[in-house]
Amino acid sequence: MVMHMTVRVAVSGASGYAGGEVLRLLSSHPEVEIGAVTAHSSAGELLGTHQPHLRSLAGRRLEATGADTLRGHDVVVLALPHGASAEVAAQLGDDVLVLDCGADHRLVDAAQWTAFYGSDHAGTWPYGLPELLLDRGSRRQRDLLAGVRRVAVPGCNVTAVTLGIQPGVAAGLVETTDLVAVLAVGYSGAGKAAKTHLLASEGLGSAVPYAVGGTHRHIPEIEQNLRWVGADAVSLSFTPALVPMARGILATTTARLVPGVAASDVRAAWVDAYADEPFVHVLPEGQWPTTAATTGANTALVQVAVDERAGRVVAVTALDNLVKGTAGAAVQSMNIALGLPETTGLPLEGVAP
Amino acid sequence: MVMHMTVRVAVSGASGYAGGEVLRLLSSHPEVEIGAVTAHSSAGELLGTHQPHLRSLAGRRLEATGADTLRGHDVVVLALPHGASAEVAAQLGDDVLVLDCGADHRLVDAAQWTAFYGSDHAGTWPYGLPELLLDRGSRRQRDLLAGVRRVAVPGCNVTAVTLGIQPGVAAGLVETTDLVAVLAVGYSGAGKAAKTHLLASEGLGSAVPYAVGGTHRHIPEIEQNLRWVGADAVSLSFTPALVPMARGILATTTARLVPGVAASDVRAAWVDAYADEPFVHVLPEGQWPTTAATTGANTALVQVAVDERAGRVVAVTALDNLVKGTAGAAVQSMNIALGLPETTGLPLEGVAP
Amino acid sequence: MVMHMTVRVAVSGASGYAGGEVLRLLSSHPEVEIGAVTAHSSAGELLGTHQPHLRSLAGRRLEATGADTLRGHDVVVLALPHGASAEVAAQLGDDVLVLDCGADHRLVDAAQWTAFYGSDHAGTWPYGLPELLLDRGSRRQRDLLAGVRRVAVPGCNVTAVTLGIQPGVAAGLVETTDLVAVLAVGYSGAGKAAKTHLLASEGLGSAVPYAVGGTHRHIPEIEQNLRWVGADAVSLSFTPALVPMARGILATTTARLVPGVAASDVRAAWVDAYADEPFVHVLPEGQWPTTAATTGANTALVQVAVDERAGRVVAVTALDNLVKGTAGAAVQSMNIALGLPETTGLPLEGVAP
Amino acid sequence: MVMHMTVRVAVSGASGYAGGEVLRLLSSHPEVEIGAVTAHSSAGELLGTHQPHLRSLAGRRLEATGADTLRGHDVVVLALPHGASAEVAAQLGDDVLVLDCGADHRLVDAAQWTAFYGSDHAGTWPYGLPELLLDRGSRRQRDLLAGVRRVAVPGCNVTAVTLGIQPGVAAGLVETTDLVAVLAVGYSGAGKAAKTHLLASEGLGSAVPYAVGGTHRHIPEIEQNLRWVGADAVSLSFTPALVPMARGILATTTARLVPGVAASDVRAAWVDAYADEPFVHVLPEGQWPTTAATTGANTALVQVAVDERAGRVVAVTALDNLVKGTAGAAVQSMNIALGLPETTGLPLEGVAP
Repeated sequence: MVMHMTVRVAVSGASGYAGGEVLRLLSSHPEVEIGAVTAHSSAGELLGTHQPHLRSLAGRRLEATGADTLRGHDVVVLALPHGASAEVAAQLGDDVLVLDCGADHRLVDAAQWTAFYGSDHAGTWPYGLPELLLDRGSRRQRDLLAGVRRVAVPGCNVTAVTLGIQPGVAAGLVETTDLVAVLAVGYSGAGKAAKTHLLASEGLGSAVPYAVGGTHRHIPEIEQNLRWVGADAVSLSFTPALVPMARGILATTTARLVPGVAASDVRAAWVDAYADEPFVHVLPEGQWPTTAATTGANTALVQVAVDERAGRVVAVTALDNLVKGTAGAAVQSMNIALGLPETTGLPLEGVAP
Repeated sequence: MVMHMTVRVAVSGASGYAGGEVLRLLSSHPEVEIGAVTAHSSAGELLGTHQPHLRSLAGRRLEATGADTLRGHDVVVLALPHGASAEVAAQLGDDVLVLDCGADHRLVDAAQWTAFYGSDHAGTWPYGLPELLLDRGSRRQRDLLAGVRRVAVPGCNVTAVTLGIQPGVAAGLVETTDLVAVLAVGYSGAGKAAKTHLLASEGLGSAVPYAVGGTHRHIPEIEQNLRWVGADAVSLSFTPALVPMARGILATTTARLVPGVAASDVRAAWVDAYADEPFVHVLPEGQWPTTAATTGANTALVQVAVDERAGRVVAVTALDNLVKGTAGAAVQSMNIALGLPETTGLPLEGVAP
Repeated sequence: MVMHMTVRVAVSGASGYAGGEVLRLLSSHPEVEIGAVTAHSSAGELLGTHQPHLRSLAGRRLEATGADTLRGHDVVVLALPHGASAEVAAQLGDDVLVLDCGADHRLVDAAQWTAFYGSDHAGTWPYGLPELLLDRGSRRQRDLLAGVRRVAVPGCNVTAVTLGIQPGVAAGLVETTDLVAVLAVGYSGAGKAAKTHLLASEGLGSAVPYAVGGTHRHIPEIEQNLRWVGADAVSLSFTPALVPMARGILATTTARLVPGVAASDVRAAWVDAYADEPFVHVLPEGQWPTTAATTGANTALVQVAVDERAGRVVAVTALDNLVKGTAGAAVQSMNIALGLPETTGLPLEGVAP
Repeated sequence: MVMHMTVRVAVSGASGYAGGEVLRLLSSHPEVEIGAVTAHSSAGELLGTHQPHLRSLAGRRLEATGADTLRGHDVVVLALPHGASAEVAAQLGDDVLVLDCGADHRLVDAAQWTAFYGSDHAGTWPYGLPELLLDRGSRRQRDLLAGVRRVAVPGCNVTAVTLGIQPGVAAGLVETTDLVAVLAVGYSGAGKAAKTHLLASEGLGSAVPYAVGGTHRHIPEIEQNLRWVGADAVSLSFTPALVPMARGILATTTARLVPGVAASDVRAAWVDAYADEPFVHVLPEGQWPTTAATTGANTALVQVAVDERAGRVVAVTALDNLVKGTAGAAVQSMNIALGLPETTGLPLEGVAP
């Protein structure tokens, strides 16, 4: 016999890409009833005008984001611009599960927050990356998520880099003081605001770097994760580039190999780290992750190689920035927090080609 | 109380795009157990090598396509090249539900088959387009599918054009003697065989017409459908072009308006035709279908306008060629044939952006 | 011995896509010296900020668009939004060659202008489509361009459809009362203004129709052209869709074949019409135009087929909307007006793949 | 007065992407007459069948590649698969300028050749990267190219990484013992052979790594270059990924900063290195290279930043793999070898958007 609960979920920021993806996943989640869908400037309009792909919800009317519309739900997902979550969350009861897809509650160090985001720190919430290998893998972040009522959903690039390199960090096989990560990122990662540099004319046929030289806001979050994994000190060079795809992140992360470590040990560490994970898969040797294989799925595909000439481990992660990178992470964390099976309602199969 | 059956399904042609999509849908179908997955030249290899996005099936081994591997299943889906289905099907019992994603059993007229496909006609099976408006809409094709054990799954372009224009044909509002359809088609519609003109280098940044001038094999199938709808005579100019997307068909179909018909009657006919259809949606006035809104979903989005200057109705359909155009149509027909709820296991929500 | 003149050319709207393309062509035009480059909201900024691909001009400073900056040039190219040209042009002397890439001076019929553009008609200038077959081909539009000092550059979609179908109209082989044109269009055709529906996230992986049902502003211009070619009455159903490419138009235009006309006569008419044209090429039988083959070039590739089942001629044109569709047409017309060889400075070779 | 010579050039491998691009550039080169165009399996066919964008050459007939067809030209460009050049070149006289776009004659170290290419070493030719900073910039590679009759054209990825990082190597500002380069590469870099993993269906919407972990054949060539620049020891981690564009390379190369070096010194070194280079441009501070800005042009755009947190310099290069990465490099080297102005016939302006 299977017990069912029905969880009533409100989604704020429902006209944007992250909010839309949360709704896509929730619409086929067997234990969820979708409550209020709210927006800011689009309040009053049909959801179908903004999210024509969400057929089962196309006739829903967007309400204004605010405590009055969000109250009365078991769960509230906030898919708002950075800096907008704290005020909304403060108006919601402690018994409500609030999942913040924005950055506001991810960083522990208030100084780091201010250095990278330029505003006051809103505080820190439990971190929604269940596969994070705490204390060199002696436990995982999912152990800290059961029963919580606040979750900071990780950044999409952060998840890609962290999942890619953490097995080597946890096993002590790689040095963390000179990490280099370069990412090919799809345009939905840049949001839905109308900006000239995000136009299709600009993006088609081009690869476009941004936030080069240590300025990207995801850097302190990755460093924080790897310290939780067990690194003493972390230094990361991080460079993303937009490439002509709507979704997907391909993260190439390299680290110096600790001298004397064998390639077979490296592979074993990666395989072991994710052997029991439902959503993070180390591919067979010789097969490399592609972003298309993760489109629409809550999966991260990982592969690792040892470059003995260069003395570096190269780890590659592919994931869908809107699913495992955002909305899927939110739903996965929600499942854990509520005591549901962790995989409930989350697609394993990608939409490819 | 809900009754459950478990249907054991084999998929032949599992290394290709259509076969892969059938497997993607079946993997989340609650009443299905996936049995044999078979292929030709890839037999013996892991499915994950060819379909790395199908994570739950990645460890499955491809078997050789043949009666011995396909026997012992309740359902067999054939996703084989045109001309290869008949021989395989002949070896399967009459009690097995066989769904042919190829063209072999679609056409009634053997002469048409030979004219367009150049081989012997394999016979005609019940046609897997449940929404087809038979006899001017007095009944629908789904009425003919209950309990059948053979289904010819429609061509993807055929479904797009038929769903777009049939409401006007059924209602007698448009003339069928001078139809014009032009389609923008994604590359997966051209299959997975390695051919120079299908290379990414050739397709990126280009629009590429093919089968221009009345030679496309989907033409007689569309004409057959519209005669079933009620047209006396059908003449169709049909031009497809490949455009740089992996999936999707955007079909623009125009027909001369019958003199004296009002625009409001046109809209009403289209809305009425699909008012109760779970997968075919006429959009609100002024909103036009985009293929992205149907990616991965079993939906077809339709819109219609009357161009009074030109005296023509313009109907636009967007669908995913691999889902509503192929694999979703197969599963939808399977559901009907087996007496399951028609929508079982079929996604309504597209993966967008 | 070759005589050289140096023509001083100003470009207005230099921060946009059309203006940038005019500058790209002019930068390698052997008889041109580029003078003022002007813009509206970007005045004062470096051209290289907005057009980083124009390396030889990257250090140029954008000036404000106005009579004072544009005066003192032999030629002024206006690449401004519709409705903005007339006022600027009025301030320029009659001895200055002014080429308007906008729509303002294309239509003869003021009522048509107002119906489709909703403002007052600015008057009509000589039309910059040299290959237009006036009076059934007894002369061509280039004959009317020598020595002129005002040129209305045609619309990009207009050029594609006109070049595709006019040989049949001129030769009396096709009926013009029921034309159907459907176009796949690259995003640069929609301009550089930041709008949500033009974002890369929206366009990648999608085909997006717009201005369906007889509302597109290029319709009266095509009809006007075909009347100049010799049609008594013209009726056109016209449907464009954006597809994921930065440049390019693939126009499929169909017309009913006049009864009794042979396919060989059709081909001969098309071949003859363009036999001596430097930029419009009818491809060998069986080869179909692709937009990639025209990228960056001032060419239009044309192919035609007779669909005897449907009783229709299908003509396909590929061109680069920013070159033969806009900037190349401007330079070609400039060459003619100034008495330079028509092909001066215009690329024949496309940038493919 | 300008002296003109006419150089007769044959192109071998004319049906492929590199050969086609050589022809595109040569067709507008004022001192070149294109002679034989040769191919292997396509010999006897029209060039226009394989290169429909090369309009001025579309009627040329492909001849068989061989000494008899290639003889009698002043210049022969070989755009053949790796390993095929040596035999052809051996049959050409020492007075003929032979430019090899393949890898056969790039590496000095025969053991490296065998380790990465697995065949016998064909010998070493003068290296066609004029901007290479030999001996810490005391001279440049162009000094060694005047009058030569054999040129090994560099690899496309090699050029991108070398141009990006060499200013810091020459100036002694960066360490070369732990370089990391990650590249986003367009599909034409993978050639025109029909392979499943290069299909448009596979590439669209995906980022696809390859040759990960120190196996890419361009690694020893980059290391060789940087030793020529002045590095004592070079170690490079190199990871390319195909992204959905037909052309272009975006190379992100990072190196540890030598302790104590100021960011302003870094910028000055990069600006100085390329101040007089016609084709390599360091962008203004804050502006990052995009591949679209180099499409079709012989330019490389470079930008550099110092990431003080990570202690690394990040250099980004954008170029067109078929132009500055291959065909443009060949023509530029040809110009130097023949004593023509180096920039003759080479486009500076990219085709964007």
